[in-house]
Amino acid sequence: ARPRVGYFYAGKKTSEIFGEQLRKMLVKDHKAVPVVISENATVYDAIVAMFVEDVGNLSVVKDHGILAGVISRKDLLKVAIGKQETQSVPVSLVMTRMPNVITVTGEDNVYNAARKLVENAVDSLPVVKVLDAERKQYEVIGRFTKTTVTKIFVELGSNREI
Amino acid sequence: ARPRVGYFYAGKKTSEIFGEQLRKMLVKDHKAVPVVISENATVYDAIVAMFVEDVGNLSVVKDHGILAGVISRKDLLKVAIGKQETQSVPVSLVMTRMPNVITVTGEDNVYNAARKLVENAVDSLPVVKVLDAERKQYEVIGRFTKTTVTKIFVELGSNREI
Repeated sequence: ARPRVGYFYAGKKTSEIFGEQLRKMLVKDHKAVPVVISENATVYDAIVAMFVEDVGNLSVVKDHGILAGVISRKDLLKVAIGKQETQSVPVSLVMTRMPNVITVTGEDNVYNAARKLVENAVDSLPVVKVLDAERKQYEVIGRFTKTTVTKIFVELGSNREI
Repeated sequence: ARPRVGYFYAGKKTSEIFGEQLRKMLVKDHKAVPVVISENATVYDAIVAMFVEDVGNLSVVKDHGILAGVISRKDLLKVAIGKQETQSVPVSLVMTRMPNVITVTGEDNVYNAARKLVENAVDSLPVVKVLDAERKQYEVIGRFTKTTVTKIFVELGSNREI
């Protein structure tokens, strides 16, 4: 029997074709450049960096770019409306700290990376290169964010028959 | 001739199938609930509302839910690190004001809505019902955000042959 038009293709549903395509697309080919700040920086420095770089999240790093934590606009806003001076509070005091940071590697596929964003209710994931898995030593090499996903979505959707 | 597997379907590329599918999905079926604040509220009220509702953007409304503007975490952070007291600054002073707000309607498709997010570099769009197009009187009925897009992306990608 002939498959129903618009639905089956070689026995696969349209949604299956899409699911397979997203699993072939790797984070390393779509990630944004990393935006990092030293763990010795203050909350004020982090806020300025967010405005200068126009991002909503920063990776906080130790020496040699090793991931120490992440900080979001929400974390910074919390300090900004509090009683403490943003210039006297170090980012390391308000960041989400390793090993509690959700990360992806460049070899992860974009479907799994997007799923991590949704399941953990975060806007951004550091893309890392694992230096020492046991000691959780990760080097930050990029960002994978909801903006990244939205750009892929638009790119994939932009082709069609006119 | 038989079409090349994984590429053509009834003469269409995989990407075209995806593009067509996204144009059939309407904003009204995927939008999030609206989160609004009165134009008479203060910046402090807006920050509290963002934490309580756990959103990154608010629609600012006049009487009867008519859209007056939008305000983002970034806008609020700017005030919070400034010299002014967040409790004395009205949101109407720092919001992006109509008619400069980018909006979508429930009848727009999710591809076009996602494209508006990317092209205008915003995280969220108010979903509106047009009450008076000439006078730009829009009622806020929802939100369409990069989180909405990421959820659709994961949903579409989750089906596949095991």
